[in-house]
Formats: sequence, structure tokens, C-alpha cells
Amino acid sequence: MSDETRSPGRFVTLEGGEGAGKSSQIPHVAETLRARGHEVVVTREPGGTALGEAVRGVLMNEYDVPMPAMSELLLMFAARAAHLEQVIEPALARGTWVVCDRFTDASYAYQGAARQLGDDAVATLEQLVQNDRRPDHVLLFDLPVTDGLARAGRRGEGNRFDRETVAFHERVRAAYRTRAAADPARYHVIDAAQPPATVRARIEAAIAAWPA
Amino acid sequence: MSDETRSPGRFVTLEGGEGAGKSSQIPHVAETLRARGHEVVVTREPGGTALGEAVRGVLMNEYDVPMPAMSELLLMFAARAAHLEQVIEPALARGTWVVCDRFTDASYAYQGAARQLGDDAVATLEQLVQNDRRPDHVLLFDLPVTDGLARAGRRGEGNRFDRETVAFHERVRAAYRTRAAADPARYHVIDAAQPPATVRARIEAAIAAWPA
Repeated sequence: MSDETRSPGRFVTLEGGEGAGKSSQIPHVAETLRARGHEVVVTREPGGTALGEAVRGVLMNEYDVPMPAMSELLLMFAARAAHLEQVIEPALARGTWVVCDRFTDASYAYQGAARQLGDDAVATLEQLVQNDRRPDHVLLFDLPVTDGLARAGRRGEGNRFDRETVAFHERVRAAYRTRAAADPARYHVIDAAQPPATVRARIEAAIAAWPA
Repeated sequence: MSDETRSPGRFVTLEGGEGAGKSSQIPHVAETLRARGHEVVVTREPGGTALGEAVRGVLMNEYDVPMPAMSELLLMFAARAAHLEQVIEPALARGTWVVCDRFTDASYAYQGAARQLGDDAVATLEQLVQNDRRPDHVLLFDLPVTDGLARAGRRGEGNRFDRETVAFHERVRAAYRTRAAADPARYHVIDAAQPPATVRARIEAAIAAWPA
């Protein structure tokens, strides 16, 4: 297909709490899409650009006093604005599919719900920064919070988010599941407690069901 | 006066384009207020907190591609949210006056007008982050753009903003003057082209005219 007739790419995001395994499944998602003939770029949030990685550093750092939740939310969207302008929109426009490790659903789950800023604050920024851009397909990796934290702990991670309370992570999970339940055509919930081979098969089945 | 009966402090900001001399006049503003019996804290934006200084570093850095204007605006407000929560609001609540080198008027002038994001984007973030908090008094240091840039150049500065076009800085100046003209009770325009001793006298006269 020539560039002139190529249809726009699609925007696929992977979401889920700590230890849900989405980052390790990203290569499989990209390979499955490539096997279907799509060009694919893989990226992540916060990050994906030089500015985004600098903002990621500011976000993951520890300060003398805790970072206000509103600052955290605004930093996420500052990185997102650059990510959209410099990576995501140009790729979609040239027909490339974009597979992104976390996007605005994570802002709803972490800052809106878990840090209790509320959905309205997130929605205001979503509209300001994204206009009408939303993910076409969201793969939500869902598993019980204690399982996820145990996995993340085994990986030896430990950023500001991993060390939050179980109640915090329960709010993250509940927000993700609520958003998925409200829009089942766009969200695909994958039981991330299953063995990796089963998770891979579920990913392939979800992708196979997407309209051409 | 005991802490219990102390009235809230007031929020004073200094605004102006590059080379307007506001940063060198800040100590005089603080001293004039202290001579009137006020406790004063001096701070600046972006900055004023550990997070804010980290964000300032991200803002002043140069990247492989220019930073999107929307990212710049969101980074300013991310720093501002921490500045308000950790420095400005606590000081005002205990009766201390806050003297701040640049605040949201700068977002209107630089990102809203000069980078052409528009007033509405700034106003949306202003309401989200500040609720009803606005400066009680704004000292606007105004001088012709070419004079200001010549002064800034002599100081050997040269960040991303100093190197913008003259047209950029003309939009900054015009936006500041428009905002001041619309609210003369709150804004005090100081002709910054005058000799420093005259500028100091104008600052003192402006402060003397503020209601007790």
C-alpha cells in the first residue's frame, strides 16, 4: 500500500497496576500486530520523548515534602503533550500503529482516583491536551492488588508509587475496572493472574477480534 | 499583634519582560514592606520549592526538538501547584506577606500570548490549580522590548526565552499592559526605563498607596 492510500494507524494502550505484567507483554503485543501487517511503534508514559524522560525523572524523584497530587497530574500531562505532538500523532498520521505502556487511563486511576483529585480534574486536562484523541483499544491487565505488589516486590522495584498503601492500589484497580466496564467495546480486560502463555493467548484473541 | 489576631498576609507579584529589572528591585520591595511592619517572604517562579526548582531545570533545558507550548504551560502550573501548597498559602495564612518574582500573569503573557496558546487555556489551569487565589497587588515593570533585551544581553544571560524573537517579546509586553489596563486597582505599572533611584521611589509610592 502506498503512503497516499494508507489508512491512519490505531492507538493501543496497555494499562494496569503495579506488577500486572503489561511491560513484559508489550513486545508480544507489538509482534502480534506486526504479524497482521501493521507498522508498529512502542512507547511509554511518562516518557517517550527527551522532555518526557526528563519529566519522568522529576516524577520518580523523592523530595523533602511529598509532591502535591495536582503537580503530579500536571507533570504527567506536560509529558503527554510532548508525546502526542512529537511521537503519537505523527505516527498515527503516517499509518503506523502506536502501542503505549500507560496513557490517560492511568491518570484517572492514579491521580484522579487513588490520589483523590477526582475525575473532573483529569477530564479537564484530557480535553485541553488531547482534544478528541483517545486510545482506540485499551488492554487492561487486571489482577488482585496483593499479587501485583508481590510481583513488583520480587522484581526489586520500589518507586514512589510502589510504596503506596494497599488501599491506594485498590483504588487504582477499582478505577481501571470501572472505566473498562463503562466502555467494553474499547477496553479488553485480561486476567493477568494467569500463566504468561495464557495471557499471551488472551492478547492474541483480543487483537484478532478488533475490526480491520 | 498575637498570631491569633493577625490579619492574613497579602500576595504581591513582580512581573515584566526580560531585562525589566524586577529581580534586582525585589529586595527593595521586601525592605519597603518590612519597614511598614510586615513579615515578608521572597520567592520566585518557576521555583520556590524543591520540586519547582527541578521543574525550572526541565523548563530551561534545551531539547533535540522544541518543547511544545502546552508542555511549557503545564510545567509552569505543576511547579505553581507545589509553590502554592507548600510556600504561598501557608505564609499568607500565618499573616506573612509573599513577594513573588513572576506568577500567573507571566503564563498569560508568555504561554498564552507570546506562544499563542490563548487566554482560555491559561484561565482553565489558573482555576484548576489556584481556585480563587490571585495576587493582591501586581507591580508591572514595563519598558520597550529592545531596551530590555539589551539589558538582559549585557547581563550575559541567555536562556530559551531570552533568545526568542523581538516579536515574541512584543507580544509579552502587550499582554502584560493589556492585563494591567483592565484592572488598574490591582496592577501598578512602573516605568522601568527610568534610573534605578526613580524606580525605587515609584515602588515606594505604589506601596504607600495600598490600603492598610
